[in-house]
This record gives sequence, C-alpha cells and structure tokens, in this order.
Amino acid sequence: MSIHAVKREQSHLAWDHSIPPVLRVQSGDTVTFDCLDASNGQITAESDISAIASLAFGQLDQVNGPVYVSDAQPGDTLQVEVLRVEPASWGWTASIPGFGLLADEFPVPQLKIWSLHHDEDTASGIYGFAWFDEARGIKIPLRPFAGEMGVAQAAKGPFSTIPPYKTGGNIDTRYMSAGSTLYLPIEVEGALFSVGDGHAAQGDGEVCGTAIETSTKVSVRLTVLKDKPYVQTPHFRTTATASEEYYCTTGVDPDIREATRAAVRNMIAYLGAEHGLSRMEAYMLCSVAGDLRMHEVVDMPNYLIGMMMPKSIFTKAK
Amino acid sequence: MSIHAVKREQSHLAWDHSIPPVLRVQSGDTVTFDCLDASNGQITAESDISAIASLAFGQLDQVNGPVYVSDAQPGDTLQVEVLRVEPASWGWTASIPGFGLLADEFPVPQLKIWSLHHDEDTASGIYGFAWFDEARGIKIPLRPFAGEMGVAQAAKGPFSTIPPYKTGGNIDTRYMSAGSTLYLPIEVEGALFSVGDGHAAQGDGEVCGTAIETSTKVSVRLTVLKDKPYVQTPHFRTTATASEEYYCTTGVDPDIREATRAAVRNMIAYLGAEHGLSRMEAYMLCSVAGDLRMHEVVDMPNYLIGMMMPKSIFTKAK
Repeated sequence: MSIHAVKREQSHLAWDHSIPPVLRVQSGDTVTFDCLDASNGQITAESDISAIASLAFGQLDQVNGPVYVSDAQPGDTLQVEVLRVEPASWGWTASIPGFGLLADEFPVPQLKIWSLHHDEDTASGIYGFAWFDEARGIKIPLRPFAGEMGVAQAAKGPFSTIPPYKTGGNIDTRYMSAGSTLYLPIEVEGALFSVGDGHAAQGDGEVCGTAIETSTKVSVRLTVLKDKPYVQTPHFRTTATASEEYYCTTGVDPDIREATRAAVRNMIAYLGAEHGLSRMEAYMLCSVAGDLRMHEVVDMPNYLIGMMMPKSIFTKAK
Repeated sequence: MSIHAVKREQSHLAWDHSIPPVLRVQSGDTVTFDCLDASNGQITAESDISAIASLAFGQLDQVNGPVYVSDAQPGDTLQVEVLRVEPASWGWTASIPGFGLLADEFPVPQLKIWSLHHDEDTASGIYGFAWFDEARGIKIPLRPFAGEMGVAQAAKGPFSTIPPYKTGGNIDTRYMSAGSTLYLPIEVEGALFSVGDGHAAQGDGEVCGTAIETSTKVSVRLTVLKDKPYVQTPHFRTTATASEEYYCTTGVDPDIREATRAAVRNMIAYLGAEHGLSRMEAYMLCSVAGDLRMHEVVDMPNYLIGMMMPKSIFTKAK
C-alpha cells in the first residue's frame, strides 16, 4: 500500500467528471489532503465582519482532488477510512445572510474567529478544545472532520459543491471524525474522490450554516468494494461521542422543516434566558455544539424535532 | 411531599380541559401511574396478527389522569421529573397499515410479541433487554419511558392523543427514561397532567409507528415553576445513552421528509443485505433501535438525514 499526497492548490470548485484527476492510486492506498478552509483562504485569523460582505461566493467550498482509484467501476462502492483529521490553530464561524436554517431571522452578518487548542486524547476521540466564551466558561470539544467527501457523478456536470448528493460531497456529518468509515456509491470509472471543508466541531444539523471552519490535513485510506450494491447514498460507521447530559428544546409542527426551525428557535430563547447569550451567539452555539434529532416523525399530523445541547460545554456551574 | 397513585382504569382518550381531574396534588408531590399499553389492553401476550385488523382505533393511546397540580396557572411551567418507569414482562411492536413513516411501502400488517427481561443496571440506565431475534443474536437494551406525557390545552377540546402538541402529549421521545426531566408549558389552571403509552425501547423517530409497546408503572414528581416563560414547547434534560459504534445510512433529498424516508429505506436495504432481515423485520428494528438524526439541514437544496443503528445490538460478530 502506498502513501500519497494532494496539495493545497490541487482543488476544484464543482463536482464534474470531466475534471482530470490530480493523482492515481491503487485500491487500499492512503492519501493525505492538505485542504484550505471552506472560504478558500478568503477568511483569515485577522478577518473582521467586513470579510463576510466581500466573500466571493463562487470561490467557496472548494474540494481537493480528484483522486482516481484503480479498479473502481460504476456500481462499486468506495470505502473511505478516515485515519486522521488535523485542524489548523484557528477557525471561524459565520452567519451569512441568506444562508442557514433561520436565515430569515438572522439577516445581519456575523463572524467569529476561534483559537483551536490542540490537546489530543485519542481514547476519547476528542482532539482538543476551543473557547466559545471563556469568561462565561463555554468550551467546545473538538472532533475535527471533513465536511466534504464525495465522488464524481455520472451525470454531466458541473454540479455545485454546496449541497450534498447521493454521491456525497458536502454531507457536513459530524460523525466523520478519525476512526469513522464512509461508503460512497461509485458512478464513474476511477471514482474521482475529493475532500474539503474542514470542521473542527459541529452539531447535527449545522444550523447557522457554518461549523468551526478550519484548514485541515485529512488522511484517508481508499478501497474499492464490489459487494455492497445497496450503498446508494452515503453510509458510514462511526463511534458515537461520549455519554453525557443534555438540555433539549423541541419543535412541534405539521411540517418537518418548520418543526426543525422551531426547535432551534426555542433553544436560542433558552440560551438567552438561562445563559445570557445573544440570539446570534446562541444560533452559532447551536450550529457548532447542538444536535438536531428527529424524536418522532410518525404521530401525524405533528412532527417532534429536538435540539439537544450537551451540558458539558458549560464549564461554570449553573 | 406526598405520594399519590393513579389507577389503571383512571384514563381518558383525548386532551380536553373539561375532563375532571382524578387526583389533586401539591407542587412537589410524587405520583405513580399504573398505565395499560397504548392498545388499551386490546393486544395481549397471546395476540396474533388478526389483532391488528380488529383494533378499535378510537380506544388507542389512552392516557392516565388528569392530575390537578395546585398553584399551576397558565403561563407557568410544569417540571416532570421521571423517577422510575417499570415495564411489564412482555411488549409488542406492530406495523399498522396507513401508519408509520413508510406506510405506503408497508401495506400488510405485522405484529411482534416480545419477552422483556428485567435486569436493571441503574448505573448504565439500562433496565433489561429483549431479544429481537435470539438465533441471529439481535438483542435490544431496554430504556423504558412513557411516550405520552402532557397537559391540557387552553383551547376547547377534545384533541386526539395521537399527535404531540406544544403542550406535550404523544412526544414519543426516547430520552424520557428514568433520570430525565421534562418541562411543559401550562395552559390551564391546575395543569391537568396525564401520562401513558409505555415504551420499553425505541429509536429516535419511532419510524414504523410503534416502539416496544408495554404496560408500565410510571413515577414522576410534579413541580410548578414560575420562572421559565421561554418554555413554549416541551423541553427536557436527559443523560444520553452510552457511547457506542453505529452503522448509518443516509437520505439526501430537497424535501426533509423524503430524505428521512430515504434514510430509513436505505437502512432496511442494508439490514437485508448484511444481516438477512426481511424488509418488515428491518423496518421494525429501525423503529425500536435505530436513531434518526439530522446531519445537515442547511446546504440547500439538499437535506442529509441519517438513520444510525447501534452495532452493539448485533451480538453475533459479523
């Protein structure tokens, strides 16, 4: 098995099977990708809120690759073992007008720059931590992962890298940290795998539209599997995060999306009332640390969606 | 603080503030409810599939109560501390035509009767276990809870006990096991709290429409809080279940509900291919042990929903 590298500048801005591969590997090989953050370097550790207004959207969510995997044929499955995800020393979270689950309620942009403290504990899967607000004692454990992992589609592109597809892409799934394994349906010869959008931490849902965005080095082992035709969308294996206490708000509505929005809105109200957070602070905290779960989706006409906030991030007793 | 009891026959079939209370308690008192299962006793340990066809739907999802709590006024919050939930020695799971997330794909009824093994481990929060299929080694940990906990609405009823409401009711939230605390917005004087629909185990979503349904004895402490006006839908505190490995399928679609359905459909295909389960067996297993989580709800136009199945229920190595 060989070890390969994809460089920071070897990136592309759309899923398109006509983009030539930057690397060819054998099934079973390991590749390390050096990825810029999802702003493609437009936001820096010194950026202020004006950086949001001047963002060139066409440059966002670049992915590094594509990597051609020998023996990969349409109908096969690409097994992506996530070996290591190393974030940078800083990250950012933004609320971008028009983007996010409550976009209509958050029209004003915001940018938060984080210091990422590396303090790896491989036993717990926690890589380090970042203070959301040190004075208030709100501390986020880092479980870094790549928000984008995908393969090229059979259909003629280009396809935007913003949404996820059945072939993966911007799946923004917090469980993709080191030790997890992703399975993707291969649609074109060579699979054409790419990765990007490093996240140092995120909750289920990524509700404000961004996580703790960061540049990352991502190492994966790519293996072609011939016996998993049922993998038609991303599947994965993961070791879930540690057991802990949660405070949860819910949304109840005949429309799942409205129930989801209500669950988040209600957590924002709770965090304001009990922890003194502004609405914007609370929205961002939901995005980086809160988990959206579907408690009940069958008792018609109302769905019940939960936003679950781990108690452990509040390090000062309430 | 006093201890009170609500008897099995002290139940009602709708949320309606005109139903007179069966009990009056002080704020801070403890009440134990002896609840029949959600079939209201129509399904027994000896029932076969014919019991589904003859179910009287108007008798389903009865709740025990209502309990009048002194000092509870509209605008207050009812704190419900779940002290203990004791299931019966058996339970049932059904796929009922017209009911469930994939109702259109499962038109044929099914009924499964379970033996519930009591083997309480209060440290882990696991009450016991039930074999889904002993020959295949598929074993479900029991974390019993009441699917229905709610208070009467200010609006003139009756309101069906099938859907959840902002005042609670059929919230079917798996995190309501002993040790959790539920907060409900009070809309009428006395709150008028009721409980029912015992579940011995359930996954997030309860996708086939039923959990491991069982009769239960539920003990709760009811306390009126005056300082939580932000509780406008059910909120709760819970200690999440233990850390473990999951296998996850996803659904990707511009419609959240369709993405949710796809995630479940894909898990059913996986369980068939890798564990030899029939589609119906897999659908029921998703409902009692699989968790629906919203991985990403902001990367438009596609949502990414996950169905996560804990590996630990498969006790025979694969």
